[in-house]
Amino acid sequence: RMRRLLASLHPAETAHLLESLPPKERLVCWPIINPELRGEVLSYVGDDVRTGLMTGMDTADLLSATEDLDTDDVVDILQDLPGHVMQEVLRAMNSQRRRRIEAILAYEEDTAGGLMNTDVVTVRSDITLEVVLRYLRKYGELPENTDSLYVVDHQDKYLGTLRLSQVVSRSRSLTVREAMSHQVDPIPANMSDHDVAHRFEKHDLISAPVVDKDNHLLGRITIDDVVDVIRDEAEHSLLSMAGLSEDEDTFAPVKKSIHRRSVWLGINLLTAFLAAWVIGLFDTTIEKLVALAVLMPIVASMGGIAGSQTLTLVIRSMALDQLNDKNQRWLLRKEFLVGMANGVIWAIAIAFVTYLWFGNFLLGIMIGAAIIVNMTAAAVAGVMIPLGLKRIGIDPALSGSVLLTTVTDVVGFMAFLGFATLFIV
Amino acid sequence: RMRRLLASLHPAETAHLLESLPPKERLVCWPIINPELRGEVLSYVGDDVRTGLMTGMDTADLLSATEDLDTDDVVDILQDLPGHVMQEVLRAMNSQRRRRIEAILAYEEDTAGGLMNTDVVTVRSDITLEVVLRYLRKYGELPENTDSLYVVDHQDKYLGTLRLSQVVSRSRSLTVREAMSHQVDPIPANMSDHDVAHRFEKHDLISAPVVDKDNHLLGRITIDDVVDVIRDEAEHSLLSMAGLSEDEDTFAPVKKSIHRRSVWLGINLLTAFLAAWVIGLFDTTIEKLVALAVLMPIVASMGGIAGSQTLTLVIRSMALDQLNDKNQRWLLRKEFLVGMANGVIWAIAIAFVTYLWFGNFLLGIMIGAAIIVNMTAAAVAGVMIPLGLKRIGIDPALSGSVLLTTVTDVVGFMAFLGFATLFIV
Ligand SMILES: [Mg+2]
Ligand SMILES: [Mg+2]
Ligand SMILES: [Mg+2]
Ligand SMILES: [Mg+2]
Ligand SMILES: [Mg+2]
Ligand SMILES: [Mg+2]
Ligand SMILES: [Mg+2]
Ligand SMILES: [Mg+2]
Ligand SMILES: [Mg+2]
Ligand SMILES: [Mg+2]
Ligand SMILES: [Mg+2]
Ligand SMILES: [Mg+2]
Ligand SMILES: [Mg+2]
Repeated sequence: RMRRLLASLHPAETAHLLESLPPKERLVCWPIINPELRGEVLSYVGDDVRTGLMTGMDTADLLSATEDLDTDDVVDILQDLPGHVMQEVLRAMNSQRRRRIEAILAYEEDTAGGLMNTDVVTVRSDITLEVVLRYLRKYGELPENTDSLYVVDHQDKYLGTLRLSQVVSRSRSLTVREAMSHQVDPIPANMSDHDVAHRFEKHDLISAPVVDKDNHLLGRITIDDVVDVIRDEAEHSLLSMAGLSEDEDTFAPVKKSIHRRSVWLGINLLTAFLAAWVIGLFDTTIEKLVALAVLMPIVASMGGIAGSQTLTLVIRSMALDQLNDKNQRWLLRKEFLVGMANGVIWAIAIAFVTYLWFGNFLLGIMIGAAIIVNMTAAAVAGVMIPLGLKRIGIDPALSGSVLLTTVTDVVGFMAFLGFATLFIV
Repeated sequence: RMRRLLASLHPAETAHLLESLPPKERLVCWPIINPELRGEVLSYVGDDVRTGLMTGMDTADLLSATEDLDTDDVVDILQDLPGHVMQEVLRAMNSQRRRRIEAILAYEEDTAGGLMNTDVVTVRSDITLEVVLRYLRKYGELPENTDSLYVVDHQDKYLGTLRLSQVVSRSRSLTVREAMSHQVDPIPANMSDHDVAHRFEKHDLISAPVVDKDNHLLGRITIDDVVDVIRDEAEHSLLSMAGLSEDEDTFAPVKKSIHRRSVWLGINLLTAFLAAWVIGLFDTTIEKLVALAVLMPIVASMGGIAGSQTLTLVIRSMALDQLNDKNQRWLLRKEFLVGMANGVIWAIAIAFVTYLWFGNFLLGIMIGAAIIVNMTAAAVAGVMIPLGLKRIGIDPALSGSVLLTTVTDVVGFMAFLGFATLFIV
């Protein structure tokens, strides 16, 4: 029954089904899948899942699975193989395909060159649309998602883009030069995939040509692969903030998950001990007034929440390339004011409840003051930490939240217990 | 100088520039922008920013700004206007355009109908490709991002999709019926935008036809608008987890931000008081052994971190539609094992450090036990909370993290202080 279900699915749906299975059942299903579709399925699953599926495949399996794939998808798969296996598979390909694939492999995975595919149709600028149409009819099946032809000179230098919509709607006697468009700037092969995604998103592109530094046409990037970059980037922010990788397989084996997560827990433990040490500085104060121990998590938690709101907003803006030197100052000032104002509002509420609860007016004043200090500090830290991390080349999404809660814990405990030591006990 | 810069930019870049400006400067720049491009700029900015920019525009301004826009973009803009202004703008349009726009407005914003544009080119199935080419040449400029024509019968019922790549590469004597494809299922107008995005992502679509329940062609959805849905959804998870909206303007006015964030802070305050109340139950224990107050944040924090890792993973899987009844159990079992195993590992480390720090062997045992209990509970809560929230129709990304940290705080303090009360003091 499973076999019949799998046979009726689109490879992308098969991939989704495999990704939703625990690892053991995944390996049980894999051999049932039509060998001709395996390559396509591999091109759709995440990196972690893919590595798992490919462990059992030999060179011949890999070769036949990748035979009919777009060059960019073959590269994605090859990059997840051990070096010697990749070389073997490459050696077994015919030389034209190998050359095309090696051209992509020459670029980093996270650049335009690594994203592109080499399945392009090129035309010369001096022929008429009539000739183009005749050429296309001889060409046969165009590569998937072809919405444009690229115009190159005799040295393969990029001249312009000829949309199929122009080919069909303009007069057949026009030359390619007259009908082509320059609206889309060619993308340099070393542009980062982040910048490529932004350009596609902003200009609503479907495909774009990729050129080397001498303007030679190398290939094209299509929107479906850019969508994967956008999805990956957005997930990266979400998962990094919890210390997870965007390649994380939800159904990873228990052992692997234990190992991966314990690093993050260990780092957090160090910061928790730091916070505990700060509290330890005030142990005699707490001994005298145990209400401090009861209330201190409130101060730390309000700071943590306020700070993480600011941090999340800044990390999102950074991902969207919205921040620059000028508006950073404005943002810092704004978050400072918001943090302080909310600090004052909630300080009053908390002071009041504290007074009602413990009947201690001074304790209410102290916790209120600590709340204002900590929420203001949290807002400033929420802006400065990601900016600082970015400047020194560390991913703010990954390290920002640990650093931030360290600041809000330390400042919160220090302020509350410090004020209490000075003014109450 | 600003004026010259603005004149040279693509509307999408102007939109990005405006979004990166504080609100006052934004309103200073807005009038400088070429009125003919204002509509396009509006279609690219986020909802919050757009509402701000439109406050100063009257019906005539809005009408001229939206004149040249795709129907779907006009709808996006209209939907952010107060009801009576929207009606005025609609009344001022010519009747054909108004009808087309009202057809989209009839659908919810987050459905296929709300996402579609009505700028489609249709052909009949019995004509030849030769005739199609002649028709297109008379048609003139095709709508933006046209990669396919749609084939309909005399009742406007959808029959199939004719790709331009087929029109140019197949023999001109073929009929449309012979050259058209059925690969792309038409999208029902009431499908959710979430499902539309998944279908586009999985099948690497560039555009897809939208039909009503009787299979009448209503319009088409293009990938650039789907990219916006994907971006929005991914940001929704990230921002909701910090209690922010995905429409949040980074440079929102201070007053607005104070108001928006204080709701979230208030909810968190309630849960913080709950945790404080739990600690308060053990005040006599803490009075006798103040080390408990020093160490208790470690127990709560380790649980919070472990739980939020699980929660984030589950929320991501839900967004990707990966979870079903069968694998949910597997996932719960896996996370339980991972949480407990990491609990045991870090319990040993923490117990050891505690023993060294306070020279109290029993205290080390108690904190270790509490860590194991809390991290296991955190893992279970990290899976059960989002699943439960989804079942009762509440957004897990928004409420999950508050509930989770409430559980880990309460369980952590209860376990640690409870064990200490039973076995030490
Ligand atoms: Mg892929
Ligand atoms: Mg990879
Ligand atoms: Mg690649
Ligand atoms: Mg766009
Ligand atoms: Mg591709
Ligand atoms: Mg691909
Ligand atoms: Mg990645
Ligand atoms: Mg809207
Ligand atoms: Mg819309
Ligand atoms: Mg895809
Ligand atoms: Mg559109
Ligand atoms: Mg749009
Ligand atoms: Mg939205």
